[in-house]
Amino acid sequence: MKAGVLFSGGKDSALAALLLAPHYEVELNTFAFGEGRDLRAVEAAGAALGFPWQRRTFPEGTLATALDRLVADGYPNGAIGLVHRAALEALAAGYRIVADGTRFDDRVPMLDSGEARSLMDRCGCAYVRPLLGYPRAEVDRLAGRYFTIERGETGRMPNGDYEDELRGGLRERGLDPAPFFPPVHEQTLVRGRQG
Amino acid sequence: MKAGVLFSGGKDSALAALLLAPHYEVELNTFAFGEGRDLRAVEAAGAALGFPWQRRTFPEGTLATALDRLVADGYPNGAIGLVHRAALEALAAGYRIVADGTRFDDRVPMLDSGEARSLMDRCGCAYVRPLLGYPRAEVDRLAGRYFTIERGETGRMPNGDYEDELRGGLRERGLDPAPFFPPVHEQTLVRGRQG
Repeated sequence: MKAGVLFSGGKDSALAALLLAPHYEVELNTFAFGEGRDLRAVEAAGAALGFPWQRRTFPEGTLATALDRLVADGYPNGAIGLVHRAALEALAAGYRIVADGTRFDDRVPMLDSGEARSLMDRCGCAYVRPLLGYPRAEVDRLAGRYFTIERGETGRMPNGDYEDELRGGLRERGLDPAPFFPPVHEQTLVRGRQG
Repeated sequence: MKAGVLFSGGKDSALAALLLAPHYEVELNTFAFGEGRDLRAVEAAGAALGFPWQRRTFPEGTLATALDRLVADGYPNGAIGLVHRAALEALAAGYRIVADGTRFDDRVPMLDSGEARSLMDRCGCAYVRPLLGYPRAEVDRLAGRYFTIERGETGRMPNGDYEDELRGGLRERGLDPAPFFPPVHEQTLVRGRQG
């Protein structure tokens, strides 16, 4: 059965795809707000993993809703969660199995049990999180064994993280994004397979 | 790296072992209170899966503590949770990776986030739950694809479920176990591999 995996190009979603691969026909999907967003490095990460990859665009209005939430909250957790849920719901229109790289230790984005059940009930899909039962140290150990990983801060890493586009959206509204986000937020990008 | 998997012979712990197998050296472990407990069907399930299997005995006093809790509560959730944690802790003495078949939808036994972190901190181990991110329907679909499964009620299934020994312990205390447990509790036992 096909599984549509939300893929940022980072180590977590790459490992989630790898763990699903013996049991599902994995397809990677990366969402962006704008069609102009450069996702070549994410596409290359997907090719390095050997899975088909598709670019997806969020429904009209998703960025504006997320920016409204971000400005109202003053910090990004709610907006990032909202965007992640929008991606899962859009993905569920095309797959009976939707998956992502959420880990045991993740706080944002993270659907709680009720939100996960609601997604499945509304979409008639199964929402599978292969890494949910893996603590961070094990995710990092396995990812390090299977992938060549580049690390860097948001905005400097050409991955499919949403923060970069949210920052751009704030600037377009004439707002300085700096106070809305934590000063350091390390991102990863898979550059190749190993082992 | 070796992973010690808590194995009842049922479909969930069998599927957990199967999902771990490409990434870990899986060893199945079944805990019983008494050395007299017949675990031949569980051992056969392990052999059908193709993984090494070991019988383990709970530390002295575990059954008495669990029975005290069961009698105090009047229902089995707390006692089953206590026994499950005792099994994980005993297992963690021998493995750096301990695992079980806990699913997304499970309520008992289920360690909450704090209990899982505490286990890992105290034991210096990683506690991995490969099925934690899988909803019940997906667990059942995958298990049905990979295994031949027998179903039946607790006490009639020769698996490694703890309920049967807890019922025996109550009877030894002169108590009727019936009011302490839900009337119907379906168990599974893996009888073979398929696919």
